[in-house]
Amino acid sequence: MASEKDTSPSGANSLWGGRFEAGPAEIMEKINASIDFDKILYGQDIQGSKAHCQMLIKQEIISAEDGEKILVGLDQVKEEIEAGNFTYDTALEDIHMHVESRLTEIIGDAAGRLHTARSRNDQVATDFKLWVRDASDQMDQALCGLQNALVTKAEQNAHVILPGFTHLQSAQPITFGHHLLAYFEMFTRDRDRLRDARERLNECPLGAAALAGTSFPIDRFQTAKSLNFRAPTANSLDSVSDRDFALEFLSVASICATHVSRLAEEIVIWSSAQFNFINLSDKFTTGSSIMPQKRNPDAAELCRAKAGRIIGALTSLLIVMKGLPLAYSKDMQEDKEATFDAANAFALCIAAMTGMVGDMTVNERAMKASTQNGFITATDLADWLVRVLGMPFRNAHHVTGSLVALAEKKGCDLDGLTLDEMQTVEAKITQDVFSVLTVESSVASRISFGGTAPEQVLAQVKAAKSRIK
Amino acid sequence: MASEKDTSPSGANSLWGGRFEAGPAEIMEKINASIDFDKILYGQDIQGSKAHCQMLIKQEIISAEDGEKILVGLDQVKEEIEAGNFTYDTALEDIHMHVESRLTEIIGDAAGRLHTARSRNDQVATDFKLWVRDASDQMDQALCGLQNALVTKAEQNAHVILPGFTHLQSAQPITFGHHLLAYFEMFTRDRDRLRDARERLNECPLGAAALAGTSFPIDRFQTAKSLNFRAPTANSLDSVSDRDFALEFLSVASICATHVSRLAEEIVIWSSAQFNFINLSDKFTTGSSIMPQKRNPDAAELCRAKAGRIIGALTSLLIVMKGLPLAYSKDMQEDKEATFDAANAFALCIAAMTGMVGDMTVNERAMKASTQNGFITATDLADWLVRVLGMPFRNAHHVTGSLVALAEKKGCDLDGLTLDEMQTVEAKITQDVFSVLTVESSVASRISFGGTAPEQVLAQVKAAKSRIK
Amino acid sequence: MASEKDTSPSGANSLWGGRFEAGPAEIMEKINASIDFDKILYGQDIQGSKAHCQMLIKQEIISAEDGEKILVGLDQVKEEIEAGNFTYDTALEDIHMHVESRLTEIIGDAAGRLHTARSRNDQVATDFKLWVRDASDQMDQALCGLQNALVTKAEQNAHVILPGFTHLQSAQPITFGHHLLAYFEMFTRDRDRLRDARERLNECPLGAAALAGTSFPIDRFQTAKSLNFRAPTANSLDSVSDRDFALEFLSVASICATHVSRLAEEIVIWSSAQFNFINLSDKFTTGSSIMPQKRNPDAAELCRAKAGRIIGALTSLLIVMKGLPLAYSKDMQEDKEATFDAANAFALCIAAMTGMVGDMTVNERAMKASTQNGFITATDLADWLVRVLGMPFRNAHHVTGSLVALAEKKGCDLDGLTLDEMQTVEAKITQDVFSVLTVESSVASRISFGGTAPEQVLAQVKAAKSRIK
Amino acid sequence: MASEKDTSPSGANSLWGGRFEAGPAEIMEKINASIDFDKILYGQDIQGSKAHCQMLIKQEIISAEDGEKILVGLDQVKEEIEAGNFTYDTALEDIHMHVESRLTEIIGDAAGRLHTARSRNDQVATDFKLWVRDASDQMDQALCGLQNALVTKAEQNAHVILPGFTHLQSAQPITFGHHLLAYFEMFTRDRDRLRDARERLNECPLGAAALAGTSFPIDRFQTAKSLNFRAPTANSLDSVSDRDFALEFLSVASICATHVSRLAEEIVIWSSAQFNFINLSDKFTTGSSIMPQKRNPDAAELCRAKAGRIIGALTSLLIVMKGLPLAYSKDMQEDKEATFDAANAFALCIAAMTGMVGDMTVNERAMKASTQNGFITATDLADWLVRVLGMPFRNAHHVTGSLVALAEKKGCDLDGLTLDEMQTVEAKITQDVFSVLTVESSVASRISFGGTAPEQVLAQVKAAKSRIK
Repeated sequence: MASEKDTSPSGANSLWGGRFEAGPAEIMEKINASIDFDKILYGQDIQGSKAHCQMLIKQEIISAEDGEKILVGLDQVKEEIEAGNFTYDTALEDIHMHVESRLTEIIGDAAGRLHTARSRNDQVATDFKLWVRDASDQMDQALCGLQNALVTKAEQNAHVILPGFTHLQSAQPITFGHHLLAYFEMFTRDRDRLRDARERLNECPLGAAALAGTSFPIDRFQTAKSLNFRAPTANSLDSVSDRDFALEFLSVASICATHVSRLAEEIVIWSSAQFNFINLSDKFTTGSSIMPQKRNPDAAELCRAKAGRIIGALTSLLIVMKGLPLAYSKDMQEDKEATFDAANAFALCIAAMTGMVGDMTVNERAMKASTQNGFITATDLADWLVRVLGMPFRNAHHVTGSLVALAEKKGCDLDGLTLDEMQTVEAKITQDVFSVLTVESSVASRISFGGTAPEQVLAQVKAAKSRIK
Repeated sequence: MASEKDTSPSGANSLWGGRFEAGPAEIMEKINASIDFDKILYGQDIQGSKAHCQMLIKQEIISAEDGEKILVGLDQVKEEIEAGNFTYDTALEDIHMHVESRLTEIIGDAAGRLHTARSRNDQVATDFKLWVRDASDQMDQALCGLQNALVTKAEQNAHVILPGFTHLQSAQPITFGHHLLAYFEMFTRDRDRLRDARERLNECPLGAAALAGTSFPIDRFQTAKSLNFRAPTANSLDSVSDRDFALEFLSVASICATHVSRLAEEIVIWSSAQFNFINLSDKFTTGSSIMPQKRNPDAAELCRAKAGRIIGALTSLLIVMKGLPLAYSKDMQEDKEATFDAANAFALCIAAMTGMVGDMTVNERAMKASTQNGFITATDLADWLVRVLGMPFRNAHHVTGSLVALAEKKGCDLDGLTLDEMQTVEAKITQDVFSVLTVESSVASRISFGGTAPEQVLAQVKAAKSRIK
Repeated sequence: MASEKDTSPSGANSLWGGRFEAGPAEIMEKINASIDFDKILYGQDIQGSKAHCQMLIKQEIISAEDGEKILVGLDQVKEEIEAGNFTYDTALEDIHMHVESRLTEIIGDAAGRLHTARSRNDQVATDFKLWVRDASDQMDQALCGLQNALVTKAEQNAHVILPGFTHLQSAQPITFGHHLLAYFEMFTRDRDRLRDARERLNECPLGAAALAGTSFPIDRFQTAKSLNFRAPTANSLDSVSDRDFALEFLSVASICATHVSRLAEEIVIWSSAQFNFINLSDKFTTGSSIMPQKRNPDAAELCRAKAGRIIGALTSLLIVMKGLPLAYSKDMQEDKEATFDAANAFALCIAAMTGMVGDMTVNERAMKASTQNGFITATDLADWLVRVLGMPFRNAHHVTGSLVALAEKKGCDLDGLTLDEMQTVEAKITQDVFSVLTVESSVASRISFGGTAPEQVLAQVKAAKSRIK
Repeated sequence: MASEKDTSPSGANSLWGGRFEAGPAEIMEKINASIDFDKILYGQDIQGSKAHCQMLIKQEIISAEDGEKILVGLDQVKEEIEAGNFTYDTALEDIHMHVESRLTEIIGDAAGRLHTARSRNDQVATDFKLWVRDASDQMDQALCGLQNALVTKAEQNAHVILPGFTHLQSAQPITFGHHLLAYFEMFTRDRDRLRDARERLNECPLGAAALAGTSFPIDRFQTAKSLNFRAPTANSLDSVSDRDFALEFLSVASICATHVSRLAEEIVIWSSAQFNFINLSDKFTTGSSIMPQKRNPDAAELCRAKAGRIIGALTSLLIVMKGLPLAYSKDMQEDKEATFDAANAFALCIAAMTGMVGDMTVNERAMKASTQNGFITATDLADWLVRVLGMPFRNAHHVTGSLVALAEKKGCDLDGLTLDEMQTVEAKITQDVFSVLTVESSVASRISFGGTAPEQVLAQVKAAKSRIK
C-alpha cells in the first residue's frame, strides 16, 4: 500500500478517498493522534507540570537547578503557544508530548527529569480535570448572568397577566414575572448541581503514575494543594481510569439544556403571530430581504436544538465508558471531544438565552387579551363556592361546570352571567362572587407561598436576588 | 367503529389486532391511563393526602370532623390495597382517582373536601418525589452493602498479586485488594451523588395547586415539614413542571451503572479459562446439564447489560422533557415507567454484584503466574536507574528498553539477565538492581498515597471502613 | 442469609426490601429469569418447534411416531396457554423451558427428542425473529391505516388555505391538504424501511444449534421454508449472536416516531386557542369537570412523548450489543423487553394518531384569517417582478423589500398599496401585479411538481392512493 | 454591552471569556453561522447550482447567455476553493451565500438570476442529500474492502481450530475461518442497509423552493435526472423539512459500529497475553519505549469506542428532529455536524479494522491449546448417544453429564476415560464413541448448512466471494 499523504482538497472526498490509498501508518496516525483536539489543554498541562516539578524539587527527587530550568522552560513553551509560534505535528500525538518535546529543545536533558514519578495516564487525567473544573466555574458564572436577566425581567413584569397553560390550553391566569421565575428555579438547581459536581471532582490524580502509584517519595498532598485540589485521590487505579467528572459535567449540562430548550420553545411559540406575546429584536433574529417584518427566532431554535447535541455527547461518553476493564484503555481518548463540544454548545446557549431574555419586548396587551376567553377564572369560582358557601370541592366543581355550560350557551364569559342566571344553578350564590371572576382578582388572590400573585412574585424576586451568588 | 374489548390472547397479535377493531374510546383509554404503573405510588399518595388533610384541619379550611373521617378513611384504603382487596379500573385512570374514589365510597361526601387547595398536578409531583426519595435512600443502602463487600474482599486480598492492565496488556504488578478498592472509590462517588440529588429534590411541591398557587390560606411549610421535606418549593409553576429530580436520579444511576458494568466485564474476563483469576460458584452462574464444569457468568453479563437499559431510560426522559412549554403537559406522564424500570434494574444489579463480590474465589496462583511474563517490572528497573544512578527519566527509559530487548533475545525475564549482561548496556548498574525486579518488591515499593503496596492498601481499607456510613 | 420469598406488598419497598433479605438464589432467579416477558413468544416458540419436529421426522432423525406425539402435544400446550390454564414458574426461567416441560408432562419421554439438533440459542433467535417479523407486518398495516386517514383528510382539504410556516413564522400560503400529504410522504418512507428490514431479517437461524451447527443430517432449507423464511442463515455463529433485526426494527420505529411527534406537536399548537386551526373532539382529548370547554390534547402529547421512549429503547439495545464478543452472551437477554415495549408504544401512537387525524375538525376560517397579515405573498410579488419585468431575482428581492416597508408604514398589506404607490418604488410595475397578491392566487400558482396548488394536491392525492398498498 | 471581537488565545478561556464581553451581534453570529462546518459541501452546492441553472436555461426562465456566465462562474468558484484561494467570512453565514457572493463578484448581475425558483431551503436539502449519498457510496466501498479482508483471512484459516465461546466460556470447538465469516455476514447486512437507504434518499428536493413549490415553469424531472436522482420528491413541504436520509444513514452507521465494536473487543481480548490467539504488528498497536514487547491494541480500542460517538450522533439528531413543526426550523442546522463527524469516525473505523484484519498473525497453536480443557466435545458425545444408541436428547444429556463428572474426578478430559469406565455409566457405549471426542472430529462433523466444518467454511468462502460486489 502506498503511504503518501492524502493531498486531496478538504471535503467528503478527501476524507474517504484518502482511506483507500493510505497505508496503515497513516490510518493509525489519524485514528490515534489527539493533538487536533487536546491542544486546548495546553494551559492545564503546563500548570500541572509546574506543580509536579515544584513538588519534585521540594522532595529532592530532582535538583533545584534542573527544576528551575524546567519551570522557566515551561513558561516559555506557554508563551510560544499563546503567541501562535508553535508547530503542531500529529507524529507527536498529543499535547503532553508536544510540550515535553519543545521543552527538551529549549532546555536539553533536564527536560527528561520532569516525567519522573508520573505517567501520561495521571497527567492527562489531571489536565482534563482542571479543564472541566474551569469550564464548570465559567458555566456557573454564565448561569448567574442568565439568572440576573430573568430576575430583572421578572421584576419588571410582576403585574403583567397572561394565561397560565397546561397542555398549551389556558388553565388559570398568571403573571409573567412568575412565569420567568420558574426558570430562575431551574437554573438555580443547575448551578447547585454544577457546584456539587465541582466539589466532587476536586481531588488530584497526579502521582497515581501509570496505575500503581510510584516508589519515589512524592508528596501528593502538596501537588494537590498547589493545583487547588481539595486532596489527592485515594486509589491510583481509580485515578487513571475515572472519567466520572466528565460524565457528571455532561449530565448537569444535559439537564440544564432541557431547561434552556423549554424556554426556547416558549420563545418560539410566544413570537408567533398567533400568540404575539413577545417580540425579539433584530439582535436575536434573522430576517429576510424580502419580508422585512419577519423576525425568525433562529437563536431560540438553535438553543432548543443544542439540547440534542449535549444529550448526544452524554450518551456517547456513557457508551464509551460502559464495560471498560481497568485501568486505562485507549477508548477513553474519546472523552475529550464530546466534552469540549458540549461545553462549547452549552456556553453558546446560555449566552444567547441571556441575550434573548434581556432583549425581548413584552406585549402586555396581547397577553392580557389571551386571557379573555376560555373561562379562565372557573377555578376561582369553584374556590369561592368552597370558601364562602362551604361546599365540598367536588360539589363545587360540579356547580361550576354547570355555570360554564350556561355561559357557553349564552356566548359570554363567566362574568357575563347575571346573578339571577347563576342562582338558577345554585341558589346560594351572592353578588360577592363577581369579585373573584376577573383575571386581576384571580392572580391577586393566589398569595400562597410561591404563588402567582404580584406581591408574592415581588417577594420571590427579592429572595431570588439574595440567593444569586 | 366497534368498541368491543379486545379479547384475543396475549401476545403480539392481541396488541396489534386490538388496534383495528378498537374504537377511539379504547385507544384513548389505553394510551391515557396510568394506573397500570402508577399504582405502586399508593403509599406515597396516601402519605401526601394525609399531610395535606392535617394541614387543612389546622388551617381551619376543613372541619376537624371531616378531616378525621378522611384520615381514617385513607388508612382503610391503604389497608385494603396492601391486603390485595382493591379493584383497579382503567376508567379511573390513575392511582390518585382510585384512592379518592374509594375514599368517597367509604366516607361519603367529606371525601370531596380533601382536594381543596390542591390539584392533581402538585399531588403527582409530590407522590413521585416521595417515591424517588425513597428509592434514593434504598439505593444508598444497597451501595453501602456493596462497598462493605468490596472492602472485606480487598482486606482479604491486600497481598495478592496480579498484573495491572492497561489496554488489557500487562503493565505493572498490582495487588487485588488495591484493584477492588478502585471500585470502592467509584461507588463512594455514586453515593455522594445520590445524597446531593436527594438533598436537592427535598423541597415540597404540595400547595402549588394546578400551577398558580391557591387563594386558600394554606400553610405549605407545615405540609413540607410533615412529609420530611426541607422546605416548600419557591415557585408554583416550576413545582408542577419540574422533573429534574427524576432526571438527576437517572443520571446518577447511569453513571453508577457504568461502574457496575466495568466490574461485570472484569468478572466475565477473569472467569474465562484463559484468565482463570477467579471462580464464581453455582450461586451466580448457570451451568449446563451436559457440561457440569461450566460456570456461565450470567449474573455478571446481565449486570453489564443493564447499563444499556438504565442509560436508555435517562435518554428517554431527557427527550421527553426537551422543549416542553410550561407548566404541565401530558408528555410528563412518561416520567414514571422509565424511572421505575431503571430503579428496578439498578437494584437488581447492585444486589447481584454484592453477591458476586462476596461469592468469588480468588485464584491467587493463577494471578501471580500471569505476572511472570511481559517484563512487568520494567518500570521498576527504570525507576531504579533514575533513583540510584541519577539518570534523567527519559534516558532511563531508553536503557531499560535495551535491557528488555536483551532479555527478550535471551528468552528470559529481566531477572534472568546476569549483572554482566546488564552492564554491557549500562556499566554503572550494580547487583542492587535485582532487588527491584521481583513482583513482590515492585508492589511493596509503591507506597505513595493511594498506591498499590499492601501496606497502602491496608491503610486504604482502614480509611474506607471509616468513610462508609 | 434467609431465602424466604419476599412477601411484602408491591411498591418500592417490596422491590428494595426484598433485596437485603433475599439469598443469592433469589437474586439470581430474579435477574436471570425471563419468563415474565418472554412468555408472549409462546406462539412463535411452538410454531418453530413444530417446524423443527417436522423436519426431524422427514430427515428420519426422529421416528414418525415420536414426531406425531410431539406435534399433537405442542398443539395442546398452545391451547392450554391460550385458554389461560397454564402455570408459570420462574424456576423454569423462560418460555422455551416452560413449553418443553409441559410437553414432557403430556407425552413423556418422546418430548426429550424434540431438542435434537437444536439449542436454546438458535431457538430463541428464531422465536424472536418471528415475533419481530409479525410486529413489522402489523406495524405496516397500521401505518397503511394512518396513510389512508391522511389522504382522505388531504383530499377534503385540498383547497383550504393556511399559512405555511418556517420558524413558526408565516412564510407563504399553503393548502392544508398539501400539509397533510407531507406526512403521507414520511410514513411512506417509514413503510419502505419496514419492508426492507423485514426482507433483510427473513433468514432462518434454526439449525445453527448452540453456535457451530450440528452433525445431524438436518435440512435447514425445509425448516426455513415451512416458517416462511427466504432461506436459512449462512453462518451459524452469526445466527445466534445477531440481533440486527431488533436494532433495525427499533431504528425504523425511532425515525417514524419523530414523524409522529412532529404531527403531534402541530396538533397541540393548532389546538391552542391562539392558533385555533383545528378542534379535536372529546374522543381524543381529556376535559375537566370544572372547565367543560377545555379539550386537553392528551393523546397528541403522549404521541409526542412516546418518541422519547422508543428512541430510549433503541439507544438501550445499541448499548447492550456494543462490544459483545461472539457468540452468545447473556447480555442479549435484554433485547426483548426494549423491543416489546417500543413496539407497544409504537402501536399505540399510530392508532391514536390515525384516530386524531380522522377526528379533527378543520377551522377553515381561522386558518385563512391567519394568512391575512405578515405580507405572506411577498414572494409572489418578487416572482412577478422576475417573471414579468425580467429582473434578476436578487434585485426583485430588493424591490419587494421596499414595497413591504412602504405597506408596513401605511399599515396595510401588500394589496392595500395603490399602483401609484408601487410605482414610486419601481416604475415598471403594472396593474397586473395585483393578480398575484391574494393568497388564493398564490397557492393556485404553485403548480410545480409537488407544489401546494390545489390541483397539484389533488394530483398528489390520486398518486398517493395508488401508492398505498 | 461591548461588541469587541474576542481576541484571547484559543482554549477554554477564549471560549468562555469571550461570552461575557461579546455583544449580542457576536453571540448571534457565533451561534447562527454554519460556514465553519458546511463549507465541505462546496462541491455538492456547485453541482446542484449548475443542474438548476441548466434547467432554468432549458425552460427559458433565464437566458442562455446569463446561464452560460453562471455556469462558467461556478466552475471558477470551485477551482478557487479547491486551490485554497477562497476567503471565508462568518458574516456570509453559510456555503450557499459564500458561493453566490463570490459568483456575483466574478460575473456581476447575472449571478442574481441563479436563485430564481429556488430557495436556501431546497438548496441545502439537495446539497446535504448529495453529500450523504456520496458518503454512503464511499462507505459501501470501504465495507467491501473489509469484507474482502475477512474472506481472505477466513480462507487461510478454514482449518484452524479454536474454542467457540458462549459467555466467554468454551462451548464447542470451531474454526477461525468460520468465526471471521460471522463478521462477513454482519457487514453484508450493513451494506444492504446502506444500499436500501441510498435508494430511498434518492429523490431530488430541488424545486420545492421555500416550502410551497414555485410558479415558475420549472422541470423538476430534469434537475433530478441531471443530479442522478431517481425522481423529484413528491411534496414540497416534506422536501425541505425531511432529514430522514441523515437519520437513516446514522442508524445504519450505528448498527455497523456495533459490529465493528464486537470485532474490536475480540481483538483486544485475543491480543491479551492470557488468550494470545493473535498478534497485531506495530502497524496497528502502540508500544512503549520502556516495554518494547508491548503491543497496545490502541486502534482496536478506538474502533470499539467510536461506536459511542456514532450512536451519540444518531441520538442527537433524533432528539433535534423530535417534535419540530413543519416546514423548516433552524434547529435543523444541527443536522450536519453530527452527520459529518459520525461519517468521519465511521470511515476511520472501517479503514483501521480492514488494516487490522489483514495485519493480524494467527497463533494456531495457542488457539488449539485453548480447546484442550473444558470437556469441549461433550456435546459431540451426547449427539453420539442420540445418533448411535437412539437415546432421547434429554437422556443423552444426563448420561454425558455423568461421564463428564467422572472425567473431572479422574482429572482427565473425556477421551482420557477408558471404555470400561464409560460403560459403568452407560453399558451400551462402544469403542466407536472415541471417534467423536477429538476437536478435529468435532469440527469436521458439523457440516450442516452454515456450520463450522472446514468444508462448510470453504463453501461459505466461495459463496461469499460471489456475494461481494
